[in-house]
Amino acid sequence: MTATTTKTMGMSFEPLTMHTRHPFGISYGTSQETKNVLVKLQYDNHIGYGEAAPASYHGESRETVMTVLAKFQECQSELFGDPFAIAATTARMDKIIAGHAAAKSAIEMAMHDLAGKIAGLSTRRMLGLFDAPQAMPMTDFTIGIDSLDMIEKKTEEALAAGHKLLKVKLGTSYDREIIEKVRKVAAHIPLRVDANGGWSPKEAVEKAKFLAEHNIEFIEQPLPKFAHKEDFAFVKEHSPVMIFADESICKASDVARLAGAIDGVVVKLAKSGGLLEAIRIISTARAHSLKVMFGMMIESSIGVTAAAQLASLCDYLDLDGALLLRDDPFIGAVWQDGYMMPNDKPGLGVSPRNTDE
Amino acid sequence: MTATTTKTMGMSFEPLTMHTRHPFGISYGTSQETKNVLVKLQYDNHIGYGEAAPASYHGESRETVMTVLAKFQECQSELFGDPFAIAATTARMDKIIAGHAAAKSAIEMAMHDLAGKIAGLSTRRMLGLFDAPQAMPMTDFTIGIDSLDMIEKKTEEALAAGHKLLKVKLGTSYDREIIEKVRKVAAHIPLRVDANGGWSPKEAVEKAKFLAEHNIEFIEQPLPKFAHKEDFAFVKEHSPVMIFADESICKASDVARLAGAIDGVVVKLAKSGGLLEAIRIISTARAHSLKVMFGMMIESSIGVTAAAQLASLCDYLDLDGALLLRDDPFIGAVWQDGYMMPNDKPGLGVSPRNTDE
Repeated sequence: MTATTTKTMGMSFEPLTMHTRHPFGISYGTSQETKNVLVKLQYDNHIGYGEAAPASYHGESRETVMTVLAKFQECQSELFGDPFAIAATTARMDKIIAGHAAAKSAIEMAMHDLAGKIAGLSTRRMLGLFDAPQAMPMTDFTIGIDSLDMIEKKTEEALAAGHKLLKVKLGTSYDREIIEKVRKVAAHIPLRVDANGGWSPKEAVEKAKFLAEHNIEFIEQPLPKFAHKEDFAFVKEHSPVMIFADESICKASDVARLAGAIDGVVVKLAKSGGLLEAIRIISTARAHSLKVMFGMMIESSIGVTAAAQLASLCDYLDLDGALLLRDDPFIGAVWQDGYMMPNDKPGLGVSPRNTDE
Repeated sequence: MTATTTKTMGMSFEPLTMHTRHPFGISYGTSQETKNVLVKLQYDNHIGYGEAAPASYHGESRETVMTVLAKFQECQSELFGDPFAIAATTARMDKIIAGHAAAKSAIEMAMHDLAGKIAGLSTRRMLGLFDAPQAMPMTDFTIGIDSLDMIEKKTEEALAAGHKLLKVKLGTSYDREIIEKVRKVAAHIPLRVDANGGWSPKEAVEKAKFLAEHNIEFIEQPLPKFAHKEDFAFVKEHSPVMIFADESICKASDVARLAGAIDGVVVKLAKSGGLLEAIRIISTARAHSLKVMFGMMIESSIGVTAAAQLASLCDYLDLDGALLLRDDPFIGAVWQDGYMMPNDKPGLGVSPRNTDE
């Protein structure tokens, strides 16, 4: 491999604009356009793909991502060296600028893609994480916030499409009606809910008791991102339903901080800054006997397929980001009867749609 | 890579007996013979090497290792499948029998060696952990428990051999004299000490105050393996010197349990059961802002070189296991002016001495 170290890595990025089939509503707002950023790392005759999915509630936008990536591009000769120095490159990005996890995740993802392509191995083989498909949990499909009529229609569509596991977005003034509407259509399938920080501790406990009557698996992020540990502990203590933290968990150190006050964590590449930190978060969560869900933003098949590499490490999956899109320009992991199956191609296993890669 | 899955893995193991240059004493006892076990995994035309270094104080002996490995060999067709399914194979070993980390670490190490050889990449490249050599801390050299005259002689020998960083084994009735003897010969170099669980909490605090006067970096395992968290917290609170846990930390869940009551952890493959759990331990320790030292038992260059793959993740290294031997039958990482440098050959980068591999 010595020869490869004399080659250099080239980085480029461009806007990746996509559209959801329906307007997608969560407690922070509603949108139909997804403003992500595509990153390409070129090395030898290989291209590694990565995707940044910024969220305003994590302090990122497409504009900040493009600004940070432009900075990384400017100093790419110092930033990039050996294509297998993934942790070291992330450490260098962190020295250039703190935060900006979505921007960094695009680079980190692209490095895994590239490393796998150079080696001729899928990312999970590289990491020693290859496993039988049955080790992977089913992925859910998300019903966003909408009018009650639209929620009924979306739920019917989801069931018709074969989904057997739904996640329902809450954090509204009509949460009870939403759940009753979904349960009217989908009486018996497993449901989980996501409040996206929309409740106070006392509201969360009250809603949890109502949700328990409707047989809900767990509640994601009942409290705001920066809620105190004591408030999470209060909700966990009084809720009959498991409490997961999502927005409150970006790095492994957040798990260490909140462990004991939550039942599980939601890991996302756009929050962690990449696969290696995602594995660290999962490791820390497991060390604290916490449940783990892998989730994602609205992302193309690049983001889905990168996340699917780590699926065998998780209890729950929420990898429907690309299923919600009507114009995903990439192909990769494929939804099969509830399971988001990665392929075994080198790297992440993604390629532009309508080409042979 | 699909073709490789039709090939099968073959496992063999044999005693690996080696001898230290000097009798090696720690608080549990003294020995000059090291009774380890060598594991070979064969796949296609590749051989992956692993080493088990059992310690009686962790409930393992060469005999238990051989017994457990015989069981794994007996069910190897179910145990082994895809050579890149390292985490999954460890999970299967854990289902067959709990514990026995040294035995399992030999298999896990050999799988990393094999996977890297199949891919043509060093283990740390596979894991995305390739880094510049300067990212690695210096390794220390250990002065075992002995007569004061021998300790003086060993310290002189160590300095003459170029060691600039020593670790001193304590946990005796003459700990003060040992430190005074070492400091007489090595007045100014950094020293750390290891009590191997030899003290009570009150003794530990008293010794820590004495050690602080002799400019000791940190104390490893002052209390017994199963000491309460409250006792570690007491020692940490009253010690002017950092307190690390070694025997008390086998798995990442041990870090979660003791965090807050210690300053750092000592990771060893023989305790963790392999590299992936070692990374999980390091991740959990980092999440809790703990310092990390990578250590080892008395092991051949197989164990040293496997540990050296993860050196860039650590603050401190104690990778002198093979330096203490006079008949190490393997070559791999090389000691260079204080640094234990892994090579960049495929897999762990080890081979039998006196052959070209």
